[in-house]
Amino acid sequence: MADTEGKVITCKAAVAWEPNKPLVIEDVEVAPPQAGEVRVKILFTALCHTDAYTWSGKDPEGLFPCILGHEAAGIVESIGEGVTEVQPGDHVIPCYQAECRECKFCKSGKTNLCGKVRAATGVGVMMNDHKSRFSINGKPIYHFMGTSTFSQYTVVHDVSVAKIDPKAPLEKVCLLGCGVPTGLGAVWNTAKVEPGSNVAIFGLGTVGLAVAEGAKTAGASRIIGIDIDPTKFDRAKNFGVTEFVNPKDHDKPIQQVIIDLTDGGVDYSFECIGNVSVMRAALECCHKGWGTSVIVGVAASGQEISTRPFQLVTGRVWKGTAFGGFKSRSHVPWLVEKYMKKEIKVDEYITHNMALNDMNKAFDLMHEGSCLRCVLAMHD
Amino acid sequence: MADTEGKVITCKAAVAWEPNKPLVIEDVEVAPPQAGEVRVKILFTALCHTDAYTWSGKDPEGLFPCILGHEAAGIVESIGEGVTEVQPGDHVIPCYQAECRECKFCKSGKTNLCGKVRAATGVGVMMNDHKSRFSINGKPIYHFMGTSTFSQYTVVHDVSVAKIDPKAPLEKVCLLGCGVPTGLGAVWNTAKVEPGSNVAIFGLGTVGLAVAEGAKTAGASRIIGIDIDPTKFDRAKNFGVTEFVNPKDHDKPIQQVIIDLTDGGVDYSFECIGNVSVMRAALECCHKGWGTSVIVGVAASGQEISTRPFQLVTGRVWKGTAFGGFKSRSHVPWLVEKYMKKEIKVDEYITHNMALNDMNKAFDLMHEGSCLRCVLAMHD
Ligand SMILES: NC(=O)c1ccc[n+]([C@@H]2O[C@H](COP(=O)([O-])OP(=O)(O)OC[C@H]3O[C@@H](n4cnc5c(N)ncnc54)[C@H](O)[C@@H]3O)[C@@H](O)[C@H]2O)c1
Ligand SMILES: NC(=O)c1ccc[n+]([C@@H]2O[C@H](COP(=O)([O-])OP(=O)(O)OC[C@H]3O[C@@H](n4cnc5c(N)ncnc54)[C@H](O)[C@@H]3O)[C@@H](O)[C@H]2O)c1
Ligand SMILES: [Zn+2]
Ligand SMILES: [Zn+2]
Ligand SMILES: [Zn+2]
Ligand SMILES: [Zn+2]
Repeated sequence: MADTEGKVITCKAAVAWEPNKPLVIEDVEVAPPQAGEVRVKILFTALCHTDAYTWSGKDPEGLFPCILGHEAAGIVESIGEGVTEVQPGDHVIPCYQAECRECKFCKSGKTNLCGKVRAATGVGVMMNDHKSRFSINGKPIYHFMGTSTFSQYTVVHDVSVAKIDPKAPLEKVCLLGCGVPTGLGAVWNTAKVEPGSNVAIFGLGTVGLAVAEGAKTAGASRIIGIDIDPTKFDRAKNFGVTEFVNPKDHDKPIQQVIIDLTDGGVDYSFECIGNVSVMRAALECCHKGWGTSVIVGVAASGQEISTRPFQLVTGRVWKGTAFGGFKSRSHVPWLVEKYMKKEIKVDEYITHNMALNDMNKAFDLMHEGSCLRCVLAMHD
Repeated sequence: MADTEGKVITCKAAVAWEPNKPLVIEDVEVAPPQAGEVRVKILFTALCHTDAYTWSGKDPEGLFPCILGHEAAGIVESIGEGVTEVQPGDHVIPCYQAECRECKFCKSGKTNLCGKVRAATGVGVMMNDHKSRFSINGKPIYHFMGTSTFSQYTVVHDVSVAKIDPKAPLEKVCLLGCGVPTGLGAVWNTAKVEPGSNVAIFGLGTVGLAVAEGAKTAGASRIIGIDIDPTKFDRAKNFGVTEFVNPKDHDKPIQQVIIDLTDGGVDYSFECIGNVSVMRAALECCHKGWGTSVIVGVAASGQEISTRPFQLVTGRVWKGTAFGGFKSRSHVPWLVEKYMKKEIKVDEYITHNMALNDMNKAFDLMHEGSCLRCVLAMHD
């Protein structure tokens, strides 16, 4: 039992006071977990584009001040009343997609989206008392995505925490909290790519590369990577991409380029950028009769996708995915096992390592082509 | 062997000389079938909205003069060289979706769209010599959809003709050439509705009612019919619709009305109108996490569908269907058998019976709410 159990913990966290202003490393008070809650010591966190999007102020549902972060790993410090599935000392990955196993969504067997705590996490608070566990001098600081991993300690709902193998290196498997599972699952769960398929991947960041890896392990025969940054291509080979197309090298619309390359279009396409025109191109480069396009990228609020309905009437299918369709508490530990058995890559996505103090530098890095994931050590 | 074999047949046909002008019953010369072709004596034809759409001049691919019609039944009069699967005297349904069993599409096992003769049927001619078999005083008249059933005799490709049980009443089963299979197949093949599902159907014409029947036989528990014409509701009950919604009775957008009625949205929705705003509503009234929307209606050329990508990222699926996903030569005979065993309705969709001479009256009838299908006897 930690000697901090039941007490407020004061620790360092990167606080976003206002949209688009540098985060500030502050001393934050983290209240003890209430019923159904878990307090986690975060050891490592990575940054993802959803953090940057909310930070930028473009997310109309973004609440400030808040503590961002949702791709991380840590150790349970203490648990609230009624929590049975984790104990202090357990190694865990916080999950922004909860899995309660009881709600209509969880019981449907058709989706990984859980409805249990969404009403609270959507507005930056905990379900028990509809309040935040974070404060600075008594002023509450909002939670983010139910995870808030840019803090040395965070409080999450018990349905939002996956217990993993304690032998797994937390500085690596923190990536299994968002981007890598999203890409793998888009292929395995959402598209269900079969051996021999042709695949097009738009955007070769972490998510696109994880799609490539997923497609390769699914036995895809051609994996076409499309990016406007040609420096992405060399690295992408290691993840399974077999051909590269830079839309800037062509006068024709990119969908036509892909259709011409593949005698009518690909079997599966994935949009891993968040650009609504590319989402359209990704659908329209699919083969008539069966091509399936999966939207993985998150577009800016208010933006819309469009196409001619004839594209669908002639057999194309338009889908999307959140966290790759993985059920968080069930599947994240399984993904950790796959990593331990060297069946999936994780280390290869980590291009930078820093400390909590470098948080703003890490945000800047996300705009650089060379960066996939930057992992921050939270207690250095 | 018919004594007309190998000779030109002069017969009556309804010719569309110009867009949006009344059809004219003319004496048309129908050339004998060439290699891989079948000449069919059409006994009964119904009218479908695709005929009216091309006739209206709004179809940019419409070619004039032409002989419209694609929902019909008849008897093989003679066959061209190399035709093996039908013989003179066989009862048949012409199929605008071919099925060659050899092309990439047919062999994929994933679609009913066949590529074999599309290059010819798309431009109103036959594949063998890229010419029409119809003429009037030497002037060629274009084919339509590879079927042209508004003629007492027509020539079709052998891959576009389904041989059916000779005991089946042709004045009824002609409907199995388009609208009824489209609705049934949208449910059975494209959406794959499971028992217990909630279903929303937008538009209660022939296609929407066939969707209702398909959903009922699939075991759907709630089948919500949506139409702006309340006279459609009474009849729809016989086809399985359990609840009715008239969008005009509500101030809220129709997607919100359906979401409220169904505690979060339906499992499956079908657009059976051809209206792009309704296509959006049909997608957006689907349940988060799994709801699937199928576009069945054909929108006017150039119109586009749109939505926020978040609708798909949160688990909704957008699909479409052509001829309900049925493989024409394989499945139309099977549908005829189901009708003969009284497992599917056909008679109930026929609201009017007329003769070829009444063709223009039959076109007018399509705009009347009371009309589902009007069947024309071609040799009265
Ligand atoms: N659906 C989910 O659950 C989920 C989860 C995680 C991330 N995401 C989203 O996935 C997207 C990708 O994330 P990431 O971390 O890989 O991002 P990233 O920025 O590292 O990668 C994006 C790539 O797209 C390329 N690109 C940009 N514009 C392009 C264009 N017009 N054509 C071709 N390539 C273009 C960039 O050069 C870059 O390589 C983001 O929108 C992110 O928010 C979604
Ligand atoms: N995909 C295919 O293979 C295929 C095959 C056949 C027909 N179709 C198409 O299916 C559609 C339906 O065909 P049908 O023969 O049943 O047509 P129909 O005209 O008989 O039925 C359409 C129904 O929609 C209703 N409606 C019109 N606007 C509406 C609105 N805004 N909201 C609610 N209801 C509305 C009408 O009152 C009518 O009852 C047409 O677009 C047709 O071209 C597609
Ligand atoms: Zn993320
Ligand atoms: Zn749940
Ligand atoms: Zn039709
Ligand atoms: Zn074919």
